[in-house]
Amino acid sequence: MAIVLGPNQYGKAENRLVTVSRNGSVHTIKDLTVSTSLRGDLADTHLTGDNAKVLATDTQKNTVYAFAKEAPVGEIEDFALRLGRHFVGSQEPITGARILVDEHSWNRIDGHDHSFVQGSNEKRTTAVTIDGSQAWVVSGVRDLVVLKSTGSEFHGYPKDPYTTLKETDDRILATSVTARWRYAGTDVDWAKSFTEIRLTMLKTFADKHSLSLQQTLYAMGEAVLTTRPEVAEVRLSMPNKHHFPVDLSPFGLENDNEVFYAADRPYGLIEGSVLRDDAPDAGLAWSTLPAF
Amino acid sequence: MAIVLGPNQYGKAENRLVTVSRNGSVHTIKDLTVSTSLRGDLADTHLTGDNAKVLATDTQKNTVYAFAKEAPVGEIEDFALRLGRHFVGSQEPITGARILVDEHSWNRIDGHDHSFVQGSNEKRTTAVTIDGSQAWVVSGVRDLVVLKSTGSEFHGYPKDPYTTLKETDDRILATSVTARWRYAGTDVDWAKSFTEIRLTMLKTFADKHSLSLQQTLYAMGEAVLTTRPEVAEVRLSMPNKHHFPVDLSPFGLENDNEVFYAADRPYGLIEGSVLRDDAPDAGLAWSTLPAF
Amino acid sequence: MAIVLGPNQYGKAENRLVTVSRNGSVHTIKDLTVSTSLRGDLADTHLTGDNAKVLATDTQKNTVYAFAKEAPVGEIEDFALRLGRHFVGSQEPITGARILVDEHSWNRIDGHDHSFVQGSNEKRTTAVTIDGSQAWVVSGVRDLVVLKSTGSEFHGYPKDPYTTLKETDDRILATSVTARWRYAGTDVDWAKSFTEIRLTMLKTFADKHSLSLQQTLYAMGEAVLTTRPEVAEVRLSMPNKHHFPVDLSPFGLENDNEVFYAADRPYGLIEGSVLRDDAPDAGLAWSTLPAF
Amino acid sequence: MAIVLGPNQYGKAENRLVTVSRNGSVHTIKDLTVSTSLRGDLADTHLTGDNAKVLATDTQKNTVYAFAKEAPVGEIEDFALRLGRHFVGSQEPITGARILVDEHSWNRIDGHDHSFVQGSNEKRTTAVTIDGSQAWVVSGVRDLVVLKSTGSEFHGYPKDPYTTLKETDDRILATSVTARWRYAGTDVDWAKSFTEIRLTMLKTFADKHSLSLQQTLYAMGEAVLTTRPEVAEVRLSMPNKHHFPVDLSPFGLENDNEVFYAADRPYGLIEGSVLRDDAPDAGLAWSTLPAF
Repeated sequence: MAIVLGPNQYGKAENRLVTVSRNGSVHTIKDLTVSTSLRGDLADTHLTGDNAKVLATDTQKNTVYAFAKEAPVGEIEDFALRLGRHFVGSQEPITGARILVDEHSWNRIDGHDHSFVQGSNEKRTTAVTIDGSQAWVVSGVRDLVVLKSTGSEFHGYPKDPYTTLKETDDRILATSVTARWRYAGTDVDWAKSFTEIRLTMLKTFADKHSLSLQQTLYAMGEAVLTTRPEVAEVRLSMPNKHHFPVDLSPFGLENDNEVFYAADRPYGLIEGSVLRDDAPDAGLAWSTLPAF
Repeated sequence: MAIVLGPNQYGKAENRLVTVSRNGSVHTIKDLTVSTSLRGDLADTHLTGDNAKVLATDTQKNTVYAFAKEAPVGEIEDFALRLGRHFVGSQEPITGARILVDEHSWNRIDGHDHSFVQGSNEKRTTAVTIDGSQAWVVSGVRDLVVLKSTGSEFHGYPKDPYTTLKETDDRILATSVTARWRYAGTDVDWAKSFTEIRLTMLKTFADKHSLSLQQTLYAMGEAVLTTRPEVAEVRLSMPNKHHFPVDLSPFGLENDNEVFYAADRPYGLIEGSVLRDDAPDAGLAWSTLPAF
Repeated sequence: MAIVLGPNQYGKAENRLVTVSRNGSVHTIKDLTVSTSLRGDLADTHLTGDNAKVLATDTQKNTVYAFAKEAPVGEIEDFALRLGRHFVGSQEPITGARILVDEHSWNRIDGHDHSFVQGSNEKRTTAVTIDGSQAWVVSGVRDLVVLKSTGSEFHGYPKDPYTTLKETDDRILATSVTARWRYAGTDVDWAKSFTEIRLTMLKTFADKHSLSLQQTLYAMGEAVLTTRPEVAEVRLSMPNKHHFPVDLSPFGLENDNEVFYAADRPYGLIEGSVLRDDAPDAGLAWSTLPAF
Repeated sequence: MAIVLGPNQYGKAENRLVTVSRNGSVHTIKDLTVSTSLRGDLADTHLTGDNAKVLATDTQKNTVYAFAKEAPVGEIEDFALRLGRHFVGSQEPITGARILVDEHSWNRIDGHDHSFVQGSNEKRTTAVTIDGSQAWVVSGVRDLVVLKSTGSEFHGYPKDPYTTLKETDDRILATSVTARWRYAGTDVDWAKSFTEIRLTMLKTFADKHSLSLQQTLYAMGEAVLTTRPEVAEVRLSMPNKHHFPVDLSPFGLENDNEVFYAADRPYGLIEGSVLRDDAPDAGLAWSTLPAF
């Protein structure tokens, strides 16, 4: 029996990068959080502390900022691909990289060239994995919080000795969507694809009459795959943000789905994936991402 | 010498209230966080644990939910006034109340009657204080994050032995505005007033060429007072969310205000108030609110 | 009518300072978060953007770090007094300062000279206010979370139409204590005083049979004043962290105060002050601190 | 081409459970956060909204609380195993379960039978995965924050065009340890094993002279495997919580590793696994846990 080093990676997490681009007096900003991780033959530093193969995480940080100047950042997928491909092979022992980018939203203040107000907490995300000459792109959205005030039911579930929940044919359905979709390739119009996928998910959430949050989740993933051929697979994590109707009967009042208590914890958590049965192999696309 | 009870209050904090209103198939939602505090002759419970004068915080919570059903919630200032006036005198020893309400923003999903997507993290706020028959309303906004990518300078400050900061005539100015404004009375079109004040602050932030964040703060308060006669005083707390230009010279690159590191801590913190010199006395309006 | 500048202050918030002291091979660390605010004749920068009287917040930050080297940091009260007194008058227009310091706890790893493990989330705090040659010290503790599993009752409260709460003669009482105490002067053994006050509050929380959280709050403040002559006044903010017994009767089980659901929101919030009737005037001690 | 449902699970997350056990007048408390997820033949609810196979998440919550009464909770691994084995097969379509439990620490207030003060933010964790009759236990610790003020170097790393970091032979090393270890079986003295593993990791962090955080990470994992035969594999995620020495030279001061700025973001992130080369197959133990 011997003790051995297993999978490992290291990098600089949460580099906060804001860029300003000028077109005459009209400015455009990008607000990104970038995390880099490198993989490869890193046994020496683990076993003996010899760092000859360890590109310092401080250097990785510098590279993120320098790359933001050397060429326009562009779409987050392109920026992540540039960074990841640079790192792999830049030091011989580095054979793989994972680059995570979150993009934070800002809106222009009406009529102003260089003033902005922060948008919602929703983030556009990407996770690019590079292994040698291969690349996988998994993009997504986080903290997209949606609610429908009707058009949601929940009934027909089994009753066991611990079941007290009452069935309902009209409830509030609210969730904070974390979605990740795996692209089949890297030759994609990233901006257009993101915009369309996000709209498709919103529209499906709104349109689909829901008998369970699972049904809504599946419908959202299916709608993306149906309309976006560039996507091979969608993974969704959707907490059920419970809104409980308050029992007002002790006060002689009837609550006809008008007054709700929005609960913090616990919450339902529905996680699932939807994919094409002929999707290309996922390879390392998901290898170090959360399971859903 | 004796030990005595000083000022005190108690209540139920952060009641999460969501209401749904129906106009045919078109729904409207309100998402509020409501905190109640009561004051009065409460010495008994402190000194002996006799609770005969303590309206339970659980009862306060129930009242919030019941009131949301008994009449439309309406504007948060009206709802807070209703609640506060109800509590004062409902139990003889209760002579004062403070009601805090935060309103969270939601936007309708395009073309849908009952589906919504959460807006920005910005909150509309109110703090209503009742003392006997008197009432004060201090409304505001929190977490309104704004940024201008030029039109901000900072120089001319004194240099002492601990000064290393370089002067600049072009920097990013970013802040998360917490504003509270005290109304001179309670006969106000709350919704219109809020909308106009918020827009005035945004427009002033954008338009005003800034030589210091203090100057921007004052200009924002002044613009509100100039245009809104119903407001007696404005208090603002504005952290300077530093965006430092990254030094790219070690990499042979010039950074012409294009690439920034957005720092977390520490941050500048600018706090100030702007008021009319003939404003009515503030009374208890600010008595238990943070100083800025 | 004219629009005028009211009270204001500015500074650098949340400077994260860690110091290492060496006594041979034995190291001692201090982990502080320091916030500085300055006050004085600051009209120019607000009205015209003239910064000739504005000691830059960056300079304030540098001063914090330099002072940590120029002499041992010592107790947080002493460090805050040194900083505040330095700022006042260092620039002629600066007439006042408020220095906040939070101290984070670390414990030595058993048997090791220079290795530490972080303690609880509880923070020792101080808020020092300087105005000209006067100084006030308000020290305290935050996030001191305590729980007693019996010895707490709640009954005898009034029943109004919105009351549904059941009376109880045995409940869990849990709270996160924020306490601030105002010292009568500045000639105090800060470390000893803090240690004794904290122990007194813990012991009182544990020993005092509680008929209401208000009674517990008052008893804690009273015990401090009774035993610590250097303290003039205590202010306490104590959220009631509700632990609700779960109704297990649907499953044929009796819950004899054994199984609880720990709720997040809403929570009761009990705030109060206890003081000597002959306490010296508070002056500006509390002027920009939260009301409780 | 068809669109199909991929892996999925659902459950109730973050059930907050506090239990009180009595031995005469001496009480013991447990404070747990429990999350349940179920897996199995769940296509119907996804595709058609038929919930006949969906044990409601509300029922899962009730089960957690009822189980805490039906028998003593005991060690978190045992409680999670009981819950997971109950769910699998309780409804025919449920073939798998994952139970996560975090245990929050409390200390007895000296000399008191039923009063407690919250300990550090560190959590003892377990993740139990059940598939049919098989069970895997992965336990761990989160938010274990440690710091050594010397005994850490970093040098010998490659210099590329983006490298500016200076080498150091004496730095602060601080990290927040997230560790997970996979047990080879389920017949384990969980409490003893946890205590010993935690102490071994702390001692190794303190004793091991560090040439890189990777070396420290590996040494911690190796020490656990060397001393604890019941453990098959250890995975560690260790952010490098940077403490930068402040440059005091502009103020004529030398900083001999005495005064540090504790930075928030970005941070290095070192992740790795250490295992026995003859470890039993991991099966589903890690299947839905974060990669490190």
